[in-house]
Amino acid sequence: MAYQSRVSDAVVRRLPVYYRHLLELEKNGVERISSRELGERMNYTASQIRQDINCFGGFGQQGYGYHVASLRQHIAVILGIDKAYKAVIAGAGNIGRAVAGYKGFERDGFTLVGIFDKDPAVVGTKCGSLMIQPFSELEGFLKKNTVDVGVIAVPSDVAQQVADQMVRGGVRALWNFAPVDIQHPDSVVSTHVHLSDSLHILTYKMNEESLFKNIDARQQAEKNESGMLS
Amino acid sequence: MAYQSRVSDAVVRRLPVYYRHLLELEKNGVERISSRELGERMNYTASQIRQDINCFGGFGQQGYGYHVASLRQHIAVILGIDKAYKAVIAGAGNIGRAVAGYKGFERDGFTLVGIFDKDPAVVGTKCGSLMIQPFSELEGFLKKNTVDVGVIAVPSDVAQQVADQMVRGGVRALWNFAPVDIQHPDSVVSTHVHLSDSLHILTYKMNEESLFKNIDARQQAEKNESGMLS
Repeated sequence: MAYQSRVSDAVVRRLPVYYRHLLELEKNGVERISSRELGERMNYTASQIRQDINCFGGFGQQGYGYHVASLRQHIAVILGIDKAYKAVIAGAGNIGRAVAGYKGFERDGFTLVGIFDKDPAVVGTKCGSLMIQPFSELEGFLKKNTVDVGVIAVPSDVAQQVADQMVRGGVRALWNFAPVDIQHPDSVVSTHVHLSDSLHILTYKMNEESLFKNIDARQQAEKNESGMLS
Repeated sequence: MAYQSRVSDAVVRRLPVYYRHLLELEKNGVERISSRELGERMNYTASQIRQDINCFGGFGQQGYGYHVASLRQHIAVILGIDKAYKAVIAGAGNIGRAVAGYKGFERDGFTLVGIFDKDPAVVGTKCGSLMIQPFSELEGFLKKNTVDVGVIAVPSDVAQQVADQMVRGGVRALWNFAPVDIQHPDSVVSTHVHLSDSLHILTYKMNEESLFKNIDARQQAEKNESGMLS
């Protein structure tokens, strides 16, 4: 049976945000922070932060607030980024190359061990220190080498086929950049990067003020109309 | 004074998810869907969906459930993607080129009108149908042309400087891909794409089962120890 998560998606989504802010505080030389101050930085309440951390057995608050470096390390363990991972990328286009060059990859314990593409013009050329291999080698490579994470950076129409090869090759996780849902067994986990979500939040913010002016005007008109009718 | 949002960040973050799922349902030829079924697809409750939609003046549910295409169009208006936008990209590296080639951009009403880079080796070459211009031209270009959105796809160390130029040039919104927080006036809105958040959710999911085994074992050990002491 598939493993059932013990914490809500909302809590899981906040963990990386905590991590980012704590990393930033640590870089800026902040040693201690109260849960109230930490909450204000992120638009969360202090009690939400405490509750979230308590989902994972709690974390001692000694004296004034949290010790930034210790809490950051504690959350790193919760996020599993205290471990080492091997990853391959399918697709050596702009997204695949952006991921290959992504500095956070190495910081979080990832080693890129292979990159694959179907285009004969790029196969055999270098991406960073790796030689780009043909797609036809992907499954065999994964069967010979233990790889944890497969990055899907191919067009939508081949994303499922690439995911299937990665699963058959034994990856435990898929990081999907293709704008299409992919199916995989419950034993494999995945996350999906949706560029559109962040773009849509941006357009929402650009328009919110005029949106509510329209909503208010419509509701006022409806009120007036129902007043006239009654 | 800066505009104060009337809805919570959590509601705003769910809107693009609704939009994606409705678009997918519409593509698959689904005409109507109940709020319960829609909720199940997305791991939200039916009442949460109704509440979220009510934040924006409500949406008529006639007979059985929602009419998919109408609700999708309604949410498109809320998200502001029924309008047309002009965008420029700063940085013609892998991320900048990935955004330039991003199909959702055009679907959501965006027209890319300029792309800029500092590297003399790429300035003057083509990215799609656009000629890459030098950074030195960015601010002047923005002052001559009305541009809504500036995409920041440059390294962290120059992200703030590029954002400042974009703001002085008159953009209304910044889409930031640099892994650093940028400052801007309240009159400008921004969203920040954090690749690390999605990677950290992936590593969390890979490790959750063993994490809770450790937490349970530790709590059991503490219980046993306190039992022996009492």
